[in-house]
Amino acid sequence: MKEEYMRAALREAEKAKKIDEVPIGCVIVKDDKIIARGHNLRETKQQSINHAEIIAIQKACKKVGSWRLEDCDLYVTLEPCCMCAGAILQSRIRTVIYGTTDPKGGSIESTLHMYEQPGYNHYPKVESGVLQNECSQLLKNFFKEKRLKRK
Amino acid sequence: MKEEYMRAALREAEKAKKIDEVPIGCVIVKDDKIIARGHNLRETKQQSINHAEIIAIQKACKKVGSWRLEDCDLYVTLEPCCMCAGAILQSRIRTVIYGTTDPKGGSIESTLHMYEQPGYNHYPKVESGVLQNECSQLLKNFFKEKRLKRK
Repeated sequence: MKEEYMRAALREAEKAKKIDEVPIGCVIVKDDKIIARGHNLRETKQQSINHAEIIAIQKACKKVGSWRLEDCDLYVTLEPCCMCAGAILQSRIRTVIYGTTDPKGGSIESTLHMYEQPGYNHYPKVESGVLQNECSQLLKNFFKEKRLKRK
Repeated sequence: MKEEYMRAALREAEKAKKIDEVPIGCVIVKDDKIIARGHNLRETKQQSINHAEIIAIQKACKKVGSWRLEDCDLYVTLEPCCMCAGAILQSRIRTVIYGTTDPKGGSIESTLHMYEQPGYNHYPKVESGVLQNECSQLLKNFFKEKRLKRK
């Protein structure tokens, strides 16, 4: 099941790629159903906060009718940045599952170690490495193609 | 000038208070003009991400027509949480000015010390303590009244 949901997140990432956005995708699952999907739309909408996770969280809150997403699990292709890891905390999401790490901006295991800080109201469970290779390759290929185009 | 902008943020916080939201307000300033305002709307909209700063950042991006808010300064009555401090980074906001610290959730000087971490593309300047007393009292009175109502 986890791989299936990560595949859905990868399909979201592919949608971002098609419109020349950095290919990152996200889905939110509640009671074994995908209730929200999102992909990176920062450039398209010229909105700094429009990361895949933020878009999916907004949709999930609307769907559930509550800012509390306590029974929800979030699948995202790339380790969340500090804004998104913070939004996950704020939403009280149960579990965050990501495909591949982001050595520069990832705030869960790569930098900051946000969920190891004391004092929050809530701590999500964390899992990583689900379809790691696919999630990583999609990003690598995107940036490789970008570099080739520039030459 | 700084106090004037913080007063505008306080007026936003008062708007939140009127609708029984935790009274936090924010304004974003560019070229000596307020280009965006926001107040906490988490409960009203049932959206976990609807902190004052996020709402103001969304409006500012729309106004400027860009996700890059490089020449903008953000005034907020309370020290930003990790989501909002991350959104400030993502937006490349020049300066963040806050009124009072948040010992539990503030991620700039109270916990996390987010802007002291190495490796980001951008670091905003930080100033705190502008109209500290007013910003702090507004929150204290709000929670005091809440407790009295519960009795």
